[in-house]
Amino acid sequence: MANANKKARGLIEGRPALIVIDIQASTFADDSAVRSIDNMPGYADRMLASRQLIDAARGADIPVIFIQEIHRADLVDFGRELDGDEDVHCLDTNPNTEIAKKEMGFVDGDYVIQKRRYSAFYGTDLEILLKGLKAETLILCGGLTDVCVHYTFVDGHQGDYFCRVVEDCVAGSSTEAHGAALKAMEYLQSGAVRGLDETLIAMAG
Amino acid sequence: MANANKKARGLIEGRPALIVIDIQASTFADDSAVRSIDNMPGYADRMLASRQLIDAARGADIPVIFIQEIHRADLVDFGRELDGDEDVHCLDTNPNTEIAKKEMGFVDGDYVIQKRRYSAFYGTDLEILLKGLKAETLILCGGLTDVCVHYTFVDGHQGDYFCRVVEDCVAGSSTEAHGAALKAMEYLQSGAVRGLDETLIAMAG
Amino acid sequence: MANANKKARGLIEGRPALIVIDIQASTFADDSAVRSIDNMPGYADRMLASRQLIDAARGADIPVIFIQEIHRADLVDFGRELDGDEDVHCLDTNPNTEIAKKEMGFVDGDYVIQKRRYSAFYGTDLEILLKGLKAETLILCGGLTDVCVHYTFVDGHQGDYFCRVVEDCVAGSSTEAHGAALKAMEYLQSGAVRGLDETLIAMAG
Amino acid sequence: MANANKKARGLIEGRPALIVIDIQASTFADDSAVRSIDNMPGYADRMLASRQLIDAARGADIPVIFIQEIHRADLVDFGRELDGDEDVHCLDTNPNTEIAKKEMGFVDGDYVIQKRRYSAFYGTDLEILLKGLKAETLILCGGLTDVCVHYTFVDGHQGDYFCRVVEDCVAGSSTEAHGAALKAMEYLQSGAVRGLDETLIAMAG
Repeated sequence: MANANKKARGLIEGRPALIVIDIQASTFADDSAVRSIDNMPGYADRMLASRQLIDAARGADIPVIFIQEIHRADLVDFGRELDGDEDVHCLDTNPNTEIAKKEMGFVDGDYVIQKRRYSAFYGTDLEILLKGLKAETLILCGGLTDVCVHYTFVDGHQGDYFCRVVEDCVAGSSTEAHGAALKAMEYLQSGAVRGLDETLIAMAG
Repeated sequence: MANANKKARGLIEGRPALIVIDIQASTFADDSAVRSIDNMPGYADRMLASRQLIDAARGADIPVIFIQEIHRADLVDFGRELDGDEDVHCLDTNPNTEIAKKEMGFVDGDYVIQKRRYSAFYGTDLEILLKGLKAETLILCGGLTDVCVHYTFVDGHQGDYFCRVVEDCVAGSSTEAHGAALKAMEYLQSGAVRGLDETLIAMAG
Repeated sequence: MANANKKARGLIEGRPALIVIDIQASTFADDSAVRSIDNMPGYADRMLASRQLIDAARGADIPVIFIQEIHRADLVDFGRELDGDEDVHCLDTNPNTEIAKKEMGFVDGDYVIQKRRYSAFYGTDLEILLKGLKAETLILCGGLTDVCVHYTFVDGHQGDYFCRVVEDCVAGSSTEAHGAALKAMEYLQSGAVRGLDETLIAMAG
Repeated sequence: MANANKKARGLIEGRPALIVIDIQASTFADDSAVRSIDNMPGYADRMLASRQLIDAARGADIPVIFIQEIHRADLVDFGRELDGDEDVHCLDTNPNTEIAKKEMGFVDGDYVIQKRRYSAFYGTDLEILLKGLKAETLILCGGLTDVCVHYTFVDGHQGDYFCRVVEDCVAGSSTEAHGAALKAMEYLQSGAVRGLDETLIAMAG
């Protein structure tokens, strides 16, 4: 199908913000055999690649927003999240729920948004922060491609943001689900799925 | 992966509501060669199959909520929707934007929720209506599986509703995208994807 | 108290939009002795004065957005609204629930937002429309000053909009409640409460 | 006016939750001459009275939710809050922004909701938590009566919660604004404004 009304868009339109989704200490803890959430092969390496985006953002004065999935230890806020494939995860009493500060080069004063659901917009102050930053383009990295990244993209899209996802820096619950989610995001905004190299160039520009 | 904390759930938990998504006159207009939104083969037949759910709901006093995608004719509310695969669609000046009333057996007094975005929860009074109905299980049919159905499911899921999607009564932008979206919904709630027959039985029960 | 960080603001900052709240046919129906919602003296005249704002907006290409309180006739969406001073109101089966089109000079194509609650932002697409219009200043008129105007102002304020209320063109459930609500809005944004004449001048400017 | 459809309601309907709004260390710091936000006489004593509600809630297994106003130190999330009477307040770098833990008898594991705006629902996970708790009645105390308490009440009201405000345990920016806000809340739900003694009895019942 041809969308005759589609406008050409740059990788970055207006002011950008980098959204780092759920890269937490648990990602790099050596317990991969007993994960509460499935991961595709190469997961940790793709998360580590996000560090290049973070460093580039700092160099270009692009705000970095870390999203942290976190649940109350009495399980009161899981809603329907335990009715599916995911087991109990990201309890606020577990040290591995912390942002992966060392690997990501986190510094004091960095923006952190805690969330209870998959979308980083749902029940959080992300929209307040983005309005304050006057951000128009959201550059997404982190995981899972097919859950928190996908659904954050959708809410950003519905909220009129230009949304980009860096395919080298996201990973899914499976390789298949990762690929399907990338296609779904590309359906919503043409040119949404981008490579790391071109993104680094655009951020520097 | 095993989610050891997963509870067994019935097809219907608590009070149900049937959510009929974007089955509009345009679906049955004979202009399939020039659609503004791509459809998978068999699309119209799958939409027609939804009529069985609607009739069953009426017979069991289950509320039926028709969701209608509609955009202002000056295009002011399209947001980023024209940045992707979809062209201009569902203008409020186009008679084909109307609910497919005849095919769906629409009657005066039926609930209609108009929406500007993909999720039926986004910028609408759906949550107000569901609270008023004290609905706990949302049974979804309509289209597109991979866009409005999927993202309505996600918001319902995040809002603590039991969500079910009747696979015989939804259709996607492509067969592949349809299948991937069904898998994504099943990931969120095990037993979310259901057949028409078992759903009709549960509704009658 | 001195707020040393307060910035001087114009009556209009950025692009404005005129928000006409709940001026419906019932306001001008001759049944004032049996109102379902109390009104202060001079109510109808203050609503009529809003017409000057509407005409000025059209002359200056400022978008006009009519807000319409409307409830489903089966009462399903009243929530807690019947637990207080207000009786059943604004049913969608009552012709007086229609916008006061003649008195307000309504024309086809004008924006209408239907709402189920007091705030025009709650469960509606108002934010979607305002983003599409790139509006930054909301000029409010209509009623009730202390209910729908006040709480729409609050949500606009919380959503980073510059909010103005034209005191000659709003009216409350009582004169006292009207005055208290104006003070509350002025507390939130200094210079929020404005006269009709100065507003007309600013809109023309 | 008579609302013939008003139902008699108990002080507590369904499951309650106690919402303690913005009782932070700054309330009890001895810097009242230079407050960034005006307070009515007796403010601190009224906040201290909230402790009785908290103790009663613990004794009756009613969940206690502490709301904490907090802003990022770079001022990015103040929105329009500095355009009115309030100066810079509640920075996350200021120790006085902490919950008044000692005075309120805060214990580890208590629920805390951080907010950037006046309403405790705006940009927070309060609704997620309340759904998890299956709470239906919100008992409000804290400050300011005319700002954060009032606007939290309004959003709770709009979200179908039974809302109660304990007049002995709230305080406003001025005595007049406090009284006007109580009237506004009573307008929304009859019997919303309650005394401390009757509330303690209802909580124990």
